[in-house]
Amino acid sequence: MAPSVSTATAAPFDQQPTHNGKITKIINGRLLQNHAIVEGTYLWFQDGKFIHPQSTFFDAQREPDEIIDAKGLLVVPGYVDIQINGAFGIDFSDSDGTPEKLAKDIQKVAKGLFQYGCTSFCPTVVSSFSETYNKVLPLLRPRPGSVQDGAEILGAHIEGPFISKEKKGAHKVETFRTAKRGMAEFDDCYGPELQNTHGTIRIITVAPELEGVRACIPELVKRNMTVSIGHSASKIAQAEEAIAGGATCITHLFNAMQAFHHRDPGIIGVLGSTHLPIPTPETKRHPSPSSSSPSPKNPDPRPFYGVICDGIHVHPNSVKIAYYSHPSGAILVTDAMSAMGLPSGNHSLGGLDVVVDDLNRVYIRGTDTLAGSAITMDACVKNFVKFTSCTIVEALEAATLHPAQLLGIADKKGTLNVGGDADFLFLSDDLSVQRVFVGGEEVRL
Amino acid sequence: MAPSVSTATAAPFDQQPTHNGKITKIINGRLLQNHAIVEGTYLWFQDGKFIHPQSTFFDAQREPDEIIDAKGLLVVPGYVDIQINGAFGIDFSDSDGTPEKLAKDIQKVAKGLFQYGCTSFCPTVVSSFSETYNKVLPLLRPRPGSVQDGAEILGAHIEGPFISKEKKGAHKVETFRTAKRGMAEFDDCYGPELQNTHGTIRIITVAPELEGVRACIPELVKRNMTVSIGHSASKIAQAEEAIAGGATCITHLFNAMQAFHHRDPGIIGVLGSTHLPIPTPETKRHPSPSSSSPSPKNPDPRPFYGVICDGIHVHPNSVKIAYYSHPSGAILVTDAMSAMGLPSGNHSLGGLDVVVDDLNRVYIRGTDTLAGSAITMDACVKNFVKFTSCTIVEALEAATLHPAQLLGIADKKGTLNVGGDADFLFLSDDLSVQRVFVGGEEVRL
Repeated sequence: MAPSVSTATAAPFDQQPTHNGKITKIINGRLLQNHAIVEGTYLWFQDGKFIHPQSTFFDAQREPDEIIDAKGLLVVPGYVDIQINGAFGIDFSDSDGTPEKLAKDIQKVAKGLFQYGCTSFCPTVVSSFSETYNKVLPLLRPRPGSVQDGAEILGAHIEGPFISKEKKGAHKVETFRTAKRGMAEFDDCYGPELQNTHGTIRIITVAPELEGVRACIPELVKRNMTVSIGHSASKIAQAEEAIAGGATCITHLFNAMQAFHHRDPGIIGVLGSTHLPIPTPETKRHPSPSSSSPSPKNPDPRPFYGVICDGIHVHPNSVKIAYYSHPSGAILVTDAMSAMGLPSGNHSLGGLDVVVDDLNRVYIRGTDTLAGSAITMDACVKNFVKFTSCTIVEALEAATLHPAQLLGIADKKGTLNVGGDADFLFLSDDLSVQRVFVGGEEVRL
Repeated sequence: MAPSVSTATAAPFDQQPTHNGKITKIINGRLLQNHAIVEGTYLWFQDGKFIHPQSTFFDAQREPDEIIDAKGLLVVPGYVDIQINGAFGIDFSDSDGTPEKLAKDIQKVAKGLFQYGCTSFCPTVVSSFSETYNKVLPLLRPRPGSVQDGAEILGAHIEGPFISKEKKGAHKVETFRTAKRGMAEFDDCYGPELQNTHGTIRIITVAPELEGVRACIPELVKRNMTVSIGHSASKIAQAEEAIAGGATCITHLFNAMQAFHHRDPGIIGVLGSTHLPIPTPETKRHPSPSSSSPSPKNPDPRPFYGVICDGIHVHPNSVKIAYYSHPSGAILVTDAMSAMGLPSGNHSLGGLDVVVDDLNRVYIRGTDTLAGSAITMDACVKNFVKFTSCTIVEALEAATLHPAQLLGIADKKGTLNVGGDADFLFLSDDLSVQRVFVGGEEVRL
């Protein structure tokens, strides 16, 4: 059978997509593979997964059913956003409305994220009371990505309420609590989904200095959650203790934490830690070794760190300093609130009157107070190159490979490797999103 | 003539040393050359300068007059300390006493520094009134190093009084001034030595946010001075403007400057600057390009930065973060005060009662207030390896090559290159100083 060649102008939107055994081959792409942009090779997928050409083409003498011409564009893994509070006027922490309505809202956001190159995400719930968690969390259980349902939900990121009053950011202080009674407080707060039988909770952000919190980190990790430290007035010693206890991430580095003082650099100082226990290569949730790592052969014991690259929340020079001090730990996050994706102008969001300006900055109307981030993942990647002078590969990995490593899913997400989910993007040289594929299906942008 | 072989136990202390045409060859050393530790090669010097073996041994068929066996020790350039306020109870800013007495004091410090591997230095004068500068500066004019006179004086480092009241450190605020009237204020303050006809002033530390200061930087540079920014409440924009105007160093990074805030990282943020004007390779006073540099072929436009590696003034993790964000800019400084080199116990220094503890920390007696640094250069190098996990070569270059590059004297100091002054050390693997040579003469330690 002669393969059909589809292009940008003749994409297979209306075909029945996956799990039909159809083999697709991407030609003329410049592929992000093994930390480099590789030309003259092809990308193959079948039933929503990348496959090895040898096992099909050569051995089984099977031709691809379809050939897609990338026309010289970059072909890269879909972006993974581990911290996003909402978009398009919708807030994942808002529990008003029926479960059906909320589920529909989530789907709206999930589909809208495609245009920014985001093919999987951790919907993030800010500090709330138990009732909200009980209602919202079941709706955020992991589910695959698809053209119909939107970007893949990897499970929720619960940010707070075990965080510091001193570093509350936009969180509601009346919901805050400590872990005086240990894990019972966590279970009491988040309810049954914290048992993680559904894998609902993927990431939890806590302040390690709060009473009882550090002692609970090993149990949270045991329940297959990624523990991230943030919204915290932690000193360096408490932060390092949390990392040694199993925390593997810092939540939006620089924001909502102690400024970097020379005598006690606080959480930011963990980027310079040299004496944390070295993980073995079997450990799946640590950064790869880099030039600044204490061991060249083992994963880096320092945590990953999310960074909001909108040029507002963090100064570009600070982004560069962080990046070079710990390059393999950088993860780009939007930390976007519900204004993301809305047109510029006036909006009313969760009872708050805001203005979105032409640079996607969100202010409380009539003031110069920032109401949160409205940056998109594609813009984060572009900014990161600009702020750090890093290579395109390094910036892309901070939006793909690194978040997948953090979540322990680098076999499925964040690369174009065989066996992984066929979530990928065609990008122009200026890193603008041209075409998006999720689970092997092309998305109509 | 058969060469004599001298060893540690039979060093040529009593011989007439330099400028007698004698050729010396160091054998069995592990040499720091071209950014690596090199074995199986030799180091030659004659009349106080490193020479090329081909030009003597092979062409002129001349044998060395003396062979020194390094017995497998590291052979590295002598340390260059660009910021030291005094030692052994002597303070370079103290103008009490006759010029003869002061000159003798300076010689005492210069000789005492050898034991720590320091073979050249910039005696540093803290913020003072004009009378002090007029008396002290002529005594600090550059002069060569020798066994008799001590480590080479490279010219003075004048730290203040054009600095910020908000970031005064231990400086006397009543001496502080601005440059409202431009260069006239500088000339008025420091007197005739600022004309630099004697090269007296090698480095000047200023706060770039003060009125008139930034506009004077080009003229100071034109007078062959190195301008360093510090003791300053400067924001990032003012700091970058100062760098673009010709400043090439940051004085004791992290200390006496704005903490690193995410929205405005201040002077520390210059380590992450990406848009400074790129110097050409002909520019002699910028850091070499590193992995974090904006241009791989040109010098790094970011400044060098002094850092006090005593583990007290700057947190070890902060040192690591700074280092990896801008590795080729790191310069180890002692910033030592007069207590350096004194035995532990009680001392009275400049009217201040202090205690030096066993870890070389200096406190105001009866308090836990630090009175300044008492770290030595050899200890700085050891600490730097420990704090950053960098290689021995990288740590050594931060005490040798980098300060020499900053001062534009890397053809004479900071390397073992042909043509340079034969200032070098034998070090054990733990970086302890074993033998010291200045201008080709061995120092009796």
